[in-house]
Amino acid sequence: MSQRLVVIGGDAAGMATASQVRRMRPDVEIVALEMGSRTSYAACGIPYHVAGMVPDVENLVARTPEEFRSRQNIDVRLRSEVTGIDVAGGSVEVRDLDAGTTYTLGYDDLCIGTGAKAVRPPIPGIDADWVHIVKTLDDSVALLARASDADVHRVVVVGGGYIGLEMAEAFVAWGAEVTVVDGANQVMSTLDPDMAELVRDAMVGHGINVHLGAGVVGFEDHKVVLADGELAADVVVLGMGVVPNTALAADAGITLGHRRAIAVDARQATSAANIWAAGDCATSRHILTGEDIHVALGTVANRQARVAGVNIAGGDATFGGVVGTAITRVCTTEIARTGLSEAECAAAGLEFVVGKVESRTRAHYYPGSSPMTVKVLAAPGTGRLLGCQIVGGEGAGKRIDTMATAITAGFGVRDMVDLDLAYAPPFSPVWDPVVLASRQAIRHI
Amino acid sequence: MSQRLVVIGGDAAGMATASQVRRMRPDVEIVALEMGSRTSYAACGIPYHVAGMVPDVENLVARTPEEFRSRQNIDVRLRSEVTGIDVAGGSVEVRDLDAGTTYTLGYDDLCIGTGAKAVRPPIPGIDADWVHIVKTLDDSVALLARASDADVHRVVVVGGGYIGLEMAEAFVAWGAEVTVVDGANQVMSTLDPDMAELVRDAMVGHGINVHLGAGVVGFEDHKVVLADGELAADVVVLGMGVVPNTALAADAGITLGHRRAIAVDARQATSAANIWAAGDCATSRHILTGEDIHVALGTVANRQARVAGVNIAGGDATFGGVVGTAITRVCTTEIARTGLSEAECAAAGLEFVVGKVESRTRAHYYPGSSPMTVKVLAAPGTGRLLGCQIVGGEGAGKRIDTMATAITAGFGVRDMVDLDLAYAPPFSPVWDPVVLASRQAIRHI
Repeated sequence: MSQRLVVIGGDAAGMATASQVRRMRPDVEIVALEMGSRTSYAACGIPYHVAGMVPDVENLVARTPEEFRSRQNIDVRLRSEVTGIDVAGGSVEVRDLDAGTTYTLGYDDLCIGTGAKAVRPPIPGIDADWVHIVKTLDDSVALLARASDADVHRVVVVGGGYIGLEMAEAFVAWGAEVTVVDGANQVMSTLDPDMAELVRDAMVGHGINVHLGAGVVGFEDHKVVLADGELAADVVVLGMGVVPNTALAADAGITLGHRRAIAVDARQATSAANIWAAGDCATSRHILTGEDIHVALGTVANRQARVAGVNIAGGDATFGGVVGTAITRVCTTEIARTGLSEAECAAAGLEFVVGKVESRTRAHYYPGSSPMTVKVLAAPGTGRLLGCQIVGGEGAGKRIDTMATAITAGFGVRDMVDLDLAYAPPFSPVWDPVVLASRQAIRHI
Repeated sequence: MSQRLVVIGGDAAGMATASQVRRMRPDVEIVALEMGSRTSYAACGIPYHVAGMVPDVENLVARTPEEFRSRQNIDVRLRSEVTGIDVAGGSVEVRDLDAGTTYTLGYDDLCIGTGAKAVRPPIPGIDADWVHIVKTLDDSVALLARASDADVHRVVVVGGGYIGLEMAEAFVAWGAEVTVVDGANQVMSTLDPDMAELVRDAMVGHGINVHLGAGVVGFEDHKVVLADGELAADVVVLGMGVVPNTALAADAGITLGHRRAIAVDARQATSAANIWAAGDCATSRHILTGEDIHVALGTVANRQARVAGVNIAGGDATFGGVVGTAITRVCTTEIARTGLSEAECAAAGLEFVVGKVESRTRAHYYPGSSPMTVKVLAAPGTGRLLGCQIVGGEGAGKRIDTMATAITAGFGVRDMVDLDLAYAPPFSPVWDPVVLASRQAIRHI
């Protein structure tokens, strides 16, 4: 029975674990150690703060350290860096960054929620002050200052993934000339090439330049040097992905898994006794492949933290895994996916058939009805749903939840045709586009 | 093997059946008999035409008789009323309304798609020319003429259901002073009273007067006489529900079921050999209760028609049933439901617990984020999902599809907490409101 829980990391995973334990166990001492000066902030809100849509960066803070202390009796210690974990001794080494002192703190249970860090490859010039990463709220403040600067005209976003697209939208909102560059031959590497092509077309339609197939080789003198030329840039934003922040865990001998994320079991337990991990630093089990993967998303962090918290508090919970659901938007174009892409099916040795339709978000005669394309992947023979990708106008994206639920249920494309989904002209065509795509797939199974 | 299919009714159910048969059987003769002068029109689009949002009433026609004839070789006969079915002889009696002649038409298979008709109780004065029903596109044209008439100021809508709310919105859009009256003590009788109260509050917020608990006893001299007073009205719109249009089937000795809808099995077969029925005139099996009910919705009509068509064409399909999904909107307030309400649970002898939350459509800091309330009903003990109701701002309603899918899959509230749903600030809070409501229900099971 835990008497003291120590949490490393004061963001979603760490603080949600702490909160869950507190709900079930008013008696346990809970200490949360955060290297920075904020808790529980919504990093996914940064692009909208930079776009000028969120008045104050503090709006992105879900709960302040003071709220955790006063309402939940959680001893939040800011500017406190954990420099080592003594697995055998059951303690962590903590450096108080302001005082410059170091102390040892014992734990009965330890939860690692150290998150992920932005990829920043060793490209010459990448440390220039006009090259920004997108990670903390301080980054957000700095980016908003640049975005709103009347002297900033040309922006280059490196990376055509979720963050890249969202930051492109943010700068477009300020009227900047934005170019997204990516070394790959498509944006959104988590989509199939044909669906990514729709995204690229939409980006161009929204006035965003897209430069593919040429990696960045350097940043110099307000120019981004590419393998095939160069682009002038007042500001560069890096959206090159994230990697799990697990050096601390690795140094302590805790087993790492996929992409060097901390390997956890379904109860969020690590290889070390009484040490748990959750969120962007930990692995997740994929429901369709049974493989452990690395997913850095706030939803997964919160779900895993709930599980870790229940177990630390003496209960018994297991994480149900992921099906690879994600959603984003670039200007008015919504992009969502769940399950496996064609490449992921191939990697998992799964054969698939495809159903793909262009339909509408609303009844065709209803004002604001816009095109949406749905692609469904299904197993030949059984018709079992393997994946879905959506690109379309307002209202298109969240339909992915229906498919994520259906995939989790093990539904096949024939089950989709029989689903009692909601229809009224402002919301959908009579046959929802996800059903139409499934019907299309039936012809090939 | 069918050589001639006769379809009665040229709207969704009839024409979708005909189309499905044609796709599978190019050889069969198909005759579609329609009493009116249009095919396949979207009656659910009428409120938006009346609101002035759809430029031409013909936009609501999905496919014209000419298109059915030329593209699908379907012999569509308009202004052709079927006056009798000879079950033993395998023929129908058809009256050509223009020529005034009558003829007999033999069939190998017959599909009845006679739909439903608007309820028009024998209230004194209900036939006055300022009292309108909402059923055909001619009604729509007449209603638009009244809505856009500068002399029409005061509108009374009788009935606080789907059509009532949608017509209220349509007249509000033209600046009319609209009062919705209903003899019941709540609007939206398919919702629980507490959720219906949210709808009523929203209607009042949108400037709609709501007068409950007083039935209409008469219409006279541009006044609606209620049990407790009277309301002046330039126009009255009746939205008092629909009943299956099944006199023809009953006269032929075909078995009727719930609410006098034509009783059909899972293959859409009626009690008579080679006679099928689909859509608003037929029953539907409820997945949760196993009972046959009557559902008059375009989605169900299309799904049943597909099944009837496959079976008529010699294939084998079964209708998966309904879970009671429906959606509507009044101004910017979205309303959706699936599964069973509290009253329906009680009627089915099912115990339930409730989870209810007020959350947001988007991240709290995201512009346009608006409140949404989700109520989940679940079985005590197992936690199996029994129903869900949603009332909220833009983006709230279509979330019902996630719950309809989960209910169909037999999921419990604990499964909801584990679902990998999509999150990004423009689309949802980190925990989707449907998950939050399910979590709330877990505390009571």
